[in-house]
Amino acid sequence: MFDALPDEVKIVEVGPRDGLQNEAEHVPTDKKIQLIEALGASGLRHIEITSFVSPKWIPQMADAAEVAARVKLPPSVSTSALVPNLKGFESAKASGMKEIAVFMSATESHSQKNINKTIAQAVDTVVEIVAAAKAAKIRVRGYLSVVFECPYEGQTNLVEVVRLSNRLFEIGIDELSLGDTIGAAAPNQVKNLLALITDAKELARIALHFHDTRGTALANVLAGLDSGITIFDSSIGGMGGCPYAPGAAGNLATEDLAYMLSQMGIKTGVDLEKLVDCGQLAQEIVKRKLPGRYLQACLSSRAKRQKVEASQ
Amino acid sequence: MFDALPDEVKIVEVGPRDGLQNEAEHVPTDKKIQLIEALGASGLRHIEITSFVSPKWIPQMADAAEVAARVKLPPSVSTSALVPNLKGFESAKASGMKEIAVFMSATESHSQKNINKTIAQAVDTVVEIVAAAKAAKIRVRGYLSVVFECPYEGQTNLVEVVRLSNRLFEIGIDELSLGDTIGAAAPNQVKNLLALITDAKELARIALHFHDTRGTALANVLAGLDSGITIFDSSIGGMGGCPYAPGAAGNLATEDLAYMLSQMGIKTGVDLEKLVDCGQLAQEIVKRKLPGRYLQACLSSRAKRQKVEASQ
Repeated sequence: MFDALPDEVKIVEVGPRDGLQNEAEHVPTDKKIQLIEALGASGLRHIEITSFVSPKWIPQMADAAEVAARVKLPPSVSTSALVPNLKGFESAKASGMKEIAVFMSATESHSQKNINKTIAQAVDTVVEIVAAAKAAKIRVRGYLSVVFECPYEGQTNLVEVVRLSNRLFEIGIDELSLGDTIGAAAPNQVKNLLALITDAKELARIALHFHDTRGTALANVLAGLDSGITIFDSSIGGMGGCPYAPGAAGNLATEDLAYMLSQMGIKTGVDLEKLVDCGQLAQEIVKRKLPGRYLQACLSSRAKRQKVEASQ
Repeated sequence: MFDALPDEVKIVEVGPRDGLQNEAEHVPTDKKIQLIEALGASGLRHIEITSFVSPKWIPQMADAAEVAARVKLPPSVSTSALVPNLKGFESAKASGMKEIAVFMSATESHSQKNINKTIAQAVDTVVEIVAAAKAAKIRVRGYLSVVFECPYEGQTNLVEVVRLSNRLFEIGIDELSLGDTIGAAAPNQVKNLLALITDAKELARIALHFHDTRGTALANVLAGLDSGITIFDSSIGGMGGCPYAPGAAGNLATEDLAYMLSQMGIKTGVDLEKLVDCGQLAQEIVKRKLPGRYLQACLSSRAKRQKVEASQ
């Protein structure tokens, strides 16, 4: 282990989209923009800001065009938006997005339940969107869900994951995020899957998207780093619940990821203190404590310090 | 990584002592015994049940002798108790304990603040207790705190940690638990420390004791496994806060550890469902949600299932 750790890791912040889309209560557009701009100011360089999806499906994302139009970020920060179909792509393009993200599942059952399509139909949609994106010189990120464990089928067939990964790259996506959607993977599963990706050029464009539902997210990141992965998704404060287990922890928290990488001497460009400020802001926005470990430890230390200062 | 994973790992459950000792509210002796017996029934084979410490220091542990006398466990379960000095050792011995645990810090500042002794004075106490324990054929476990990061001194000097580890084995302890007391270590620090322990016989008797304060506990376990460690401490539900950051996560949760090991095909002897029952019981005892990730995910799934069943 650690024979060939990368000098630098790309963090893709998915909180404003993957986190907020699960919020039942409406989050005002101004608050979303405030959070995205704070995330940009913390040194994060890649932020998925919204989803151009039908408001009938996800009402929380009905303001996608407004968010995209109004958010102000330094030129060093790239943004992307999720699109489920060509219609969503056209809206994203009209809003000036330079990168979009498409998604599909690695198992038939999850594909059916999540987007009401077979895997083959989902691939067709991706082909359609990628063709349009290429024509418009828009970068495409792909998400492949439930690559380790599926809530309906149990352990996912890794050969099928590799087949779909290859297919997505063949179609022309620029980056592929492999998702442990229910947060059930262990490090050996990460190693086993990545051992099957033998093309170094593909490996360099693969991101890992972990959920911390069972506490294994950073152990899985470590296994990913050890397998040559240099891109990881995370969400501020761990925002974004697991729809299969309400109340449980969901996305890997950006602060936990950034802390571990920073302790390991791996550059991320992120200012941890500013990230904690963002986590605090995210908590104010969703009006509850978020599950991120580093966030809670840091906010608790800050509160203790303030108490000591106030008593002096 | 994973070139030489162990077939089996020894989990040392420290919840009843390390977890409960930090509880402000008195926990009735009956409840403690109920929890310890449930932990034994879950397949855990090593449980630190109490601490023979002055009730003036830790009132929560005033019932140590009663707990030790009354708890009923299968013969396959070994128990131990923490002792701070010879007086505590004599009480533990009188209570029939077959294993005790001594403790000291790896930094002068933490040693002073925690037990009001220099490191040299703490070593003298250990010498005294170990001599008495050897005479009584009682097994001795040693805890060395703040081996990676100290809340007062920052990064701990690894050479000093190795010196103290060697000294403790030389004195005659049977097992040594190295503690990331403030939960700040990252996997590279674990690897770096263990690379300095060159004696294979010592390595086989070293346990790692992680806190999940910043989410890195299981990543650190992975680094430990990869360095040849086969003994890990954990606490049911992650019980046992971090005194330096009230409200933050403390001990690594036993369920999280057992889940990851089980997914990796490493035997622990533990039944995960029964462990979740223990976590639920621990929550009832301390009257709040515990930070363990697997516990919360599992309890949430159970609640969802019950809701579905009730509506059918």
